[in-house]
Amino acid sequence: VSDPNDLYVIIMAGGRGTRFWPRSRRSMPKQCLSLDGGRTLIQKTVDRVRPLAPAERVLVITAADMADAIAAQLPELPAENILVEPEGRNTAPCVGWGVVEVRRRAGGEAVIAVLPADHLIRDEDGLRGDLAAAAAAASATGALVTLGLTPTRPETGFGYLELGASVGDWGGRTLREVARFVEKPDVVTAEAYLAGGNHLWNAGMFVFTVGAAVAAFEAHLPDMWSALSRLEQAPEALPAIYPTLEKISFDFGIMERAPRVITCPSSPGWSDVGSWTAAGEHLPASPLGRALVRAGIAIDAGDCVVHAPEKVVALVGVRDLVIVDAGDALLVCRADQAQRVRDVIDALGASGLDDLL
Amino acid sequence: VSDPNDLYVIIMAGGRGTRFWPRSRRSMPKQCLSLDGGRTLIQKTVDRVRPLAPAERVLVITAADMADAIAAQLPELPAENILVEPEGRNTAPCVGWGVVEVRRRAGGEAVIAVLPADHLIRDEDGLRGDLAAAAAAASATGALVTLGLTPTRPETGFGYLELGASVGDWGGRTLREVARFVEKPDVVTAEAYLAGGNHLWNAGMFVFTVGAAVAAFEAHLPDMWSALSRLEQAPEALPAIYPTLEKISFDFGIMERAPRVITCPSSPGWSDVGSWTAAGEHLPASPLGRALVRAGIAIDAGDCVVHAPEKVVALVGVRDLVIVDAGDALLVCRADQAQRVRDVIDALGASGLDDLL
Repeated sequence: VSDPNDLYVIIMAGGRGTRFWPRSRRSMPKQCLSLDGGRTLIQKTVDRVRPLAPAERVLVITAADMADAIAAQLPELPAENILVEPEGRNTAPCVGWGVVEVRRRAGGEAVIAVLPADHLIRDEDGLRGDLAAAAAAASATGALVTLGLTPTRPETGFGYLELGASVGDWGGRTLREVARFVEKPDVVTAEAYLAGGNHLWNAGMFVFTVGAAVAAFEAHLPDMWSALSRLEQAPEALPAIYPTLEKISFDFGIMERAPRVITCPSSPGWSDVGSWTAAGEHLPASPLGRALVRAGIAIDAGDCVVHAPEKVVALVGVRDLVIVDAGDALLVCRADQAQRVRDVIDALGASGLDDLL
Repeated sequence: VSDPNDLYVIIMAGGRGTRFWPRSRRSMPKQCLSLDGGRTLIQKTVDRVRPLAPAERVLVITAADMADAIAAQLPELPAENILVEPEGRNTAPCVGWGVVEVRRRAGGEAVIAVLPADHLIRDEDGLRGDLAAAAAAASATGALVTLGLTPTRPETGFGYLELGASVGDWGGRTLREVARFVEKPDVVTAEAYLAGGNHLWNAGMFVFTVGAAVAAFEAHLPDMWSALSRLEQAPEALPAIYPTLEKISFDFGIMERAPRVITCPSSPGWSDVGSWTAAGEHLPASPLGRALVRAGIAIDAGDCVVHAPEKVVALVGVRDLVIVDAGDALLVCRADQAQRVRDVIDALGASGLDDLL
C-alpha cells in the first residue's frame, strides 16, 4: 500500500474568479488576491498543506496568463512544480495531467490530494486532519476519497454527497461510502438536506493513490488517459495533446462514474468565497460593515462590504453595497447582486476595455 | 462719473467648499476643482470676465492655505493681484479690503464687480452683458448694484430680492430698485416667489463705484472702514488690522443697510454648484447617470453622479448615488443626502485624519 506520509498535493489554480473584478484580472485571478490584507488565497492554500507535504511535493496547475503572478507569490515552490496548461479544458484533464506528473516523479504508490486554490478555511488543523485521514483511507482501501463538508446553510449552488455506510476509522475520522452524487438542489430540498444530516457538500477536494486514479481514468476516460499518459515519456508533446482532450469536469468524468467513492466528513469552516459578499465575512469589522480600508467613516450608513486597502472611504446614507476599488477601476454593486459582477466583465469586453479584464 | 470700461473685478475665493470632499481639500478648495475635466471653477470665473477686464484689473482674495493652488491655476494674473487674507473674517472685510486695494491702484472713480469664485454660468455672454449694464448703472446712479437672478425653482436655500420701480435702461437691461431683501423663505413662500415673478435670487454678485462703496462702508461699518482704510498708506499693517475686523457678511453689513440698492435682473444659466448633486448637472451624460470617468458600465443601474476621471466605474443594481473618487479617498453617498458630506469632514477631524481634510 501507499504511504500516506508521502502525500503529493495538486492545487488547481486555473480559475479566473471574474466575480472578484475589479481586483481580479486575467493576470491577477482571485486566487492571487489578498482579501484580508495578508497572504493571498493561493499562498494560504500552500501554507495550509505545508505541514503535510514539503514544497517539492506541491504542484500548482494554472494558465499561462496567470503563471507569472502565481510563481511570484510562491517562491518556495520549485519552478518545475508550476504546471502551465496550454489552454483550459475543465478539471478532468487538469487532474489527469497532475496524476501523470506525480507518477513520473514518484511512481504509482504516491497519494495525491487535489485542492482548489481559492477557498478559505478557518480551522486549518482540522482540515489537515481530514486530509491525513482521507490519505490513510485512500491508501488502505484503494478508493477515490472526497472531502464532504457538513452544510451550514441550505445552499442551492453546490452539489451534494448522499452518505452511505461507514467504511472504517482513520485518523480519528469515520469515513463513509458515498451512496450517490446529487446535483444542485432546489431550496426546499436543500433545507431538507440541512435538517436531515445525511448529505454533505461536494467541495472539489479529492484524495486518492496514483494507482486508483490511473485505474479510474482508464475505466471512465480511456481516450483522455491514453493521450495524457504519453506525456510521461514525451512531456514536449503537451501543446499538441492538451487541446485535443475532452472538456469535462473531474467530478462528472471520474467521480460520478466511479463504482466506489468514499468521503471523509469535514467541518473546517470552509468557504469557497464565491462573491464579494461572501468575501466580506473574512474582512475586518468596520463602521462601514466589513471593510479593508485605510479608515472608514459611516454617516447613517453601514452593512457594506468595502475593499479599498489604500483609501479612506466615507459612506453617507447607504447600506448593503459592495464597494471595491482597484487603481484603475471601481465597482459599486448592490450586495444581493454580487454575482452579476460577471456581467460587468462581459460589458467591459463588449466596450473594448480589454486592459481592465 | 466713473468709466464703466475701467472695470475692476474682485473675485472672492476664500471658501473651502467642504461639500466637495474628497476632491476638495484645505489646499484644493472647490473653486480649484475641475468638475467637467476642463478648466477649474476659478479659471472659468477669470476667463469669463477677461473680455471685460484685463488680468491686471482682476484681483483674487483668498486664504493662505489655498493661495498657492490658486496662483498656480491663474498664471496670467500678476502676483500682486492674489490678495491673501491673514484669516477669514466673512465677506464684508474681504470686499472692504478689495475696495481699498482698487482705490490705491486706480482712485475713487473705478467701478468694481465683486464675484464669487466657485459658481458656474452657462450663458457667459449674457452674464458679461449683465455686468456691463450693472457697471454703467453703478456709474450713472452712484448706487450699489446687485445682480438678481431669475428663479428657476422654489429654492429655499437662497435669500431673495423683492423688485421695486424701474430705474432706467443700460446696456439693453432695465434695472430695478430693490424694494427689500428677503431672508431664505419657506417652500410655500418660495413657490409664490417663483410664480409671482417679482423676486430674484440674491447671488453675491455686486457692482459699484469705489466712491459708492467707500460711502457705504463709512456709513454702515465705520469702524471696519476706519481700520481698513489705513492699509492704503500702511499695507504692512494687514496682519495686525485684519484679525480685529468684525466678522460680518457684505450682504448683511452693507447691502441690506444701504438706503438704495438697485438690481440688474439676470438669467445667465447660473448655478452656485452647492453640492455634488448640483455638480452632476454639469457632468457629461453617461450610462451611469452624469459622470466624469474614463468609462462607465451600468448593469441595471443609473441616475448616479460619478466623479472619478481616472477610473473605469462599474455600477450594478444601484441608483441615485453620488460616487466621488480621489486618489486617497472615496465617497459613496445617497444623492438626497449630498449636503451631509460636511458631516464627513467633521468625522475625519474627530478621527485624526487631518491629511484628508
